[in-house]
Amino acid sequence: MSMNSFGHLFRVTTWGESHGPALGATVDGCPPGVEIDEAMIQHWLDKRKPGQNKFTTQRREPDQVKILSGVFEGQTTGTPVQLMIENTDQRSKDYGDIMDKFRPGHADITYWQKYGIRDYRGGGRSSARETASRVAAGGLAREAIKQIAPNVQITGYMVQMGPRRIDRSNFDWSQIEQNPFWTPDATAAEDWATYLDELRKSGNSVGAVVEVVARGVPAGLGAPIYAKLDTDLAAAMMSINAVKGVEIGEGMAAAELTGEANADEIFMGQDGPQYSSNHAGGILGGISTGQDIVVRFAVKPTSSILTTRKTITKSGEETEIITKGRHDPCVGIRAVPVGEAMMACVILDHLLLHRGQIGENRGRIG
Amino acid sequence: MSMNSFGHLFRVTTWGESHGPALGATVDGCPPGVEIDEAMIQHWLDKRKPGQNKFTTQRREPDQVKILSGVFEGQTTGTPVQLMIENTDQRSKDYGDIMDKFRPGHADITYWQKYGIRDYRGGGRSSARETASRVAAGGLAREAIKQIAPNVQITGYMVQMGPRRIDRSNFDWSQIEQNPFWTPDATAAEDWATYLDELRKSGNSVGAVVEVVARGVPAGLGAPIYAKLDTDLAAAMMSINAVKGVEIGEGMAAAELTGEANADEIFMGQDGPQYSSNHAGGILGGISTGQDIVVRFAVKPTSSILTTRKTITKSGEETEIITKGRHDPCVGIRAVPVGEAMMACVILDHLLLHRGQIGENRGRIG
Amino acid sequence: MSMNSFGHLFRVTTWGESHGPALGATVDGCPPGVEIDEAMIQHWLDKRKPGQNKFTTQRREPDQVKILSGVFEGQTTGTPVQLMIENTDQRSKDYGDIMDKFRPGHADITYWQKYGIRDYRGGGRSSARETASRVAAGGLAREAIKQIAPNVQITGYMVQMGPRRIDRSNFDWSQIEQNPFWTPDATAAEDWATYLDELRKSGNSVGAVVEVVARGVPAGLGAPIYAKLDTDLAAAMMSINAVKGVEIGEGMAAAELTGEANADEIFMGQDGPQYSSNHAGGILGGISTGQDIVVRFAVKPTSSILTTRKTITKSGEETEIITKGRHDPCVGIRAVPVGEAMMACVILDHLLLHRGQIGENRGRIG
Amino acid sequence: MSMNSFGHLFRVTTWGESHGPALGATVDGCPPGVEIDEAMIQHWLDKRKPGQNKFTTQRREPDQVKILSGVFEGQTTGTPVQLMIENTDQRSKDYGDIMDKFRPGHADITYWQKYGIRDYRGGGRSSARETASRVAAGGLAREAIKQIAPNVQITGYMVQMGPRRIDRSNFDWSQIEQNPFWTPDATAAEDWATYLDELRKSGNSVGAVVEVVARGVPAGLGAPIYAKLDTDLAAAMMSINAVKGVEIGEGMAAAELTGEANADEIFMGQDGPQYSSNHAGGILGGISTGQDIVVRFAVKPTSSILTTRKTITKSGEETEIITKGRHDPCVGIRAVPVGEAMMACVILDHLLLHRGQIGENRGRIG
Repeated sequence: MSMNSFGHLFRVTTWGESHGPALGATVDGCPPGVEIDEAMIQHWLDKRKPGQNKFTTQRREPDQVKILSGVFEGQTTGTPVQLMIENTDQRSKDYGDIMDKFRPGHADITYWQKYGIRDYRGGGRSSARETASRVAAGGLAREAIKQIAPNVQITGYMVQMGPRRIDRSNFDWSQIEQNPFWTPDATAAEDWATYLDELRKSGNSVGAVVEVVARGVPAGLGAPIYAKLDTDLAAAMMSINAVKGVEIGEGMAAAELTGEANADEIFMGQDGPQYSSNHAGGILGGISTGQDIVVRFAVKPTSSILTTRKTITKSGEETEIITKGRHDPCVGIRAVPVGEAMMACVILDHLLLHRGQIGENRGRIG
Repeated sequence: MSMNSFGHLFRVTTWGESHGPALGATVDGCPPGVEIDEAMIQHWLDKRKPGQNKFTTQRREPDQVKILSGVFEGQTTGTPVQLMIENTDQRSKDYGDIMDKFRPGHADITYWQKYGIRDYRGGGRSSARETASRVAAGGLAREAIKQIAPNVQITGYMVQMGPRRIDRSNFDWSQIEQNPFWTPDATAAEDWATYLDELRKSGNSVGAVVEVVARGVPAGLGAPIYAKLDTDLAAAMMSINAVKGVEIGEGMAAAELTGEANADEIFMGQDGPQYSSNHAGGILGGISTGQDIVVRFAVKPTSSILTTRKTITKSGEETEIITKGRHDPCVGIRAVPVGEAMMACVILDHLLLHRGQIGENRGRIG
Repeated sequence: MSMNSFGHLFRVTTWGESHGPALGATVDGCPPGVEIDEAMIQHWLDKRKPGQNKFTTQRREPDQVKILSGVFEGQTTGTPVQLMIENTDQRSKDYGDIMDKFRPGHADITYWQKYGIRDYRGGGRSSARETASRVAAGGLAREAIKQIAPNVQITGYMVQMGPRRIDRSNFDWSQIEQNPFWTPDATAAEDWATYLDELRKSGNSVGAVVEVVARGVPAGLGAPIYAKLDTDLAAAMMSINAVKGVEIGEGMAAAELTGEANADEIFMGQDGPQYSSNHAGGILGGISTGQDIVVRFAVKPTSSILTTRKTITKSGEETEIITKGRHDPCVGIRAVPVGEAMMACVILDHLLLHRGQIGENRGRIG
Repeated sequence: MSMNSFGHLFRVTTWGESHGPALGATVDGCPPGVEIDEAMIQHWLDKRKPGQNKFTTQRREPDQVKILSGVFEGQTTGTPVQLMIENTDQRSKDYGDIMDKFRPGHADITYWQKYGIRDYRGGGRSSARETASRVAAGGLAREAIKQIAPNVQITGYMVQMGPRRIDRSNFDWSQIEQNPFWTPDATAAEDWATYLDELRKSGNSVGAVVEVVARGVPAGLGAPIYAKLDTDLAAAMMSINAVKGVEIGEGMAAAELTGEANADEIFMGQDGPQYSSNHAGGILGGISTGQDIVVRFAVKPTSSILTTRKTITKSGEETEIITKGRHDPCVGIRAVPVGEAMMACVILDHLLLHRGQIGENRGRIG
């Protein structure tokens, strides 16, 4: 029952602070024989890496991952894989002035109230920098999934920035890699560029909604009642910094539907059951249906903004604060690869869990 | 790593099917010396009990809880508490005709695909009847919380039925117990009664949004990174049958805010920090701030409706189905006490976890 | 992290006290499709049942198991199996006089010191009666093992009573079921009968050593470093009431050997590796070799004896006590089926764990 | 459920191989505010360090620990502590010739059979080098214990080498640090020096028994039924490489006692209950009594010896092997600090667990 771990059989424990010597992920339970090297993991870290364009923090970390254990001659051995990322650009001086002040919207005050001590440099353990460890673990999970369920494809993208949503009729998978927002709607990408540039210049920030889809997931994954696939996905996504809401399929909008409208009718296709729609987001009773798994989560606006906000000090005095560090005007952007990584970890974990309890799928249809 | 358990130290394992001999909750880790008897737990089960009015299923289960262990002379002993509810009105014949057909929107097909066997009577393990076990465990959790944090108050209520939301300006705590929908908006209650009656008569159903608030929760509860208070709440609520979305504080709407609008500014009150607002829903960095903990979740419309829907059989033949059983037109109503129970379990669990790792709060302010 | 649970994927949570309404085991993670009924479990409970001969406690519990969930039409469904045993012969009056006195060697004093409350009737939760729940769970585990590794055979037997050890040259598997001590040495059985009868008449008791062997376990089970097969077996056996030592293979005697004497040399047999000896007890590096898994554990003498012993009361006054209840002169006898049950649970758990992480064995030899 | 983790609330995950870049321990759940630095942990690593005298392996690792996270300005922050030890003297060439042969008594063959891949260099993950990570974690645990139960003292020592046991009448705590065997019997130390020197020269090895005592542990630690203090200690010790048996108090010898002889009678002392003896090893019903916690474990002789032994290759051919590496003639010696570390981790874990569930001790006596 590690508080910094997630997963049942594929179990990831992340460690490290924003401005300590290093951070990383201790990954236990990875199947043996997965072909992996540092470059394959680095690929995903580079996607999350800060400083790539003007829309993400200018902190320039190379975020170079090192595999310290669990891999031998290019393959996982089945023993724990240690993925370490050393912190190189720590510029701690930026944070000295917030040593005694609590930044509104940050975890400064709650860490203090809980622990009575906090590494205030860059948010310490509560920094979004922790998500680099998740992306590294997710990179490994993706390769392991290939071994067991090679058809699985996991893709994340932004569907909303501030109040501006994409137009689903513009949805184009090939656009996702073509713009700095990982959005499938090229028109939205242009619009957001202007919108965010303005916010950035004014020292303000904005929230976003990210959607992550897993295609090709076999039916039967998930385990009632408290290890449901959607339960684990909700936990995985909500654990990402700044996330305030998680939806599966129709999500909150399911409340507005009637039972008639919401029913995904079932037909018989060539390779098994087919559905008239996917309101369920690919999960019924916590178990995958074989349809696309669809998860969405809302990321709140970065709390580090250039506007003066009222706050208090450790000694309880009222004061004001401006957060000057190097920050993202829309952290939702960099949450895309993080959401993908969490999806990969959850899917792999459930592939292993299912194989453990059941062996292979038992319930054939037709 | 039980798949049917939740909680870290206060650990609840539920068991049982809709139409088996009994169902219940095995509760481990409860503090000793909590005064409890069956009537105190029954109180909450009665709130969830079906057949109370025309808006809930007409299945008439007495849902009588028995304490089989862990309580001695009116107090918990610190050993596992077994809470059993016998099934008495099992009328299995209602379900015989769905033995081979998969009801759309239900877990029939996924249970079959996963396990190759399913107790089809009333949905078996995937029936919402499982939530009675949670309510029983939550009743115990409430009493244990009193011992440690006596100011905690947990209240759930409906804030939306179908597309009809409450008017927050009508919010009145005292109204919640006065209407069959557990809503704080008396006007909405009247409106919903008419609306739902119509749906019910037409054999249709509708979704809902439930909000659960915990007041008086001390600052400092929660444990980064994967046992965050909001992570555990998201998992707890998403694990409830038919839930498709979970929100903390602003929830999905946080995406629309700017950093300036979203910042909950901090002041110094008489008893500690005060905030200008509660966009965060009482949680920063996964740890409670001392403000109200605010969680919302969306419940999809009951999939059991009287409209004919297309589906397939176990042997893969296409067919149609009408679900005739005794069902709720809006299961969201009975989800209110379930959401409260999950909140109670999570809060108690984190009170224990916090006490375990930290002892007492260390970070004084002022 | 339930304190009353064991197992990773096949997870057993026991609950209940000696003199409450019932006790049982909540079993999560059982594979689906295992053929099981109450009689098959009852078979093992009857083996452990008290009152069968003059060498075991005269408490006459029918120990009748009921399956309350997780089984449908004679097969497990993959959901939690609740195994309940109602307490019928509770004769609580026997224990009234020990309400305030702590019996030496019993958990009375420590339960009181920990919890500040204890169900003193028959030892409450600390009664050896709890092991009935384990035997029930073990009965289910045995059937599930057949599905995955049909060659596995689990057999327990006594190898020592007090200072009297069996003569290994008399070892005869067929004798085990022929005497009240489950010993493979018919001569020892006769000797022990006289010895124990005398002890029983004098109101004294004696310890024992039980050995449990699992034959036909495939190579490759176990998971370093802290879920090693021997680690889990040590925990499983040490958790049994009154057990004070656990050995694998050579056990404590391994200390006396030289490396030369201890080496199990390896040869190539027709069906894979063969060994010149089995000092290792079938486990190397925490992983099964395919040889017999051999575990031994020492059970201390029953602490409930008719001799007057010095003790204190809850209020700290010195006093004396005689434990009059109905007790076993050698609880080691009834520990045999309990040890078998724990072996079965551990083996099944590791079969599932292995299948989860690895799929099927990967490392062929030859 | 990490397979490479132990502990409930104070949770240690070890990672790394003998000849990879590094190994270490990811420690989650440590209380905040524990004063710690690398030197304090190094103290214990130095005790275990190889190459200190002719009785331990001549591999010369500096075994220098680095704290990579979780400590800020000399105190733990309550977030994960990463303790890393880089491998510097890897001399892999020593192991090239065993790439395809399985060393008898080692985990070579079982790792291969399980995973189908193994890092054969120095035993990879199954090397006793892994225990350095435990010692590092134990060093941290010792400091954390001081914060909660400052009277706890944990001391390990050898009580048997091969067939030669110490004379308990020579027991002198102050001798333990005075000889290379950590034994309290100075006479035994002299005897063992001669004995082991001879074995070493002949290329042979021998087993040992290590005893670890925790003094000053408060009554009430431990949690029935499967998180008993003795259960967790048995698992902790059995998980150490080469351990084949674990005993609590009387251990296996308890089998030989009568109930009369085994009863630890209870008296009332000035500070609470006192006992006439400690056959129980400080634990009753899985819960500490306040007496010394006494654990013993047997370490088998090193399997790496200079005698030729028969074995097979990966392709199933019969062959012979001599293990030439740099090895300990009696690994039991270096197991002493490892056993202490495991004791420290278990005691701390149970201090936190107890505080979590109970708060403070509830059951006063007198």
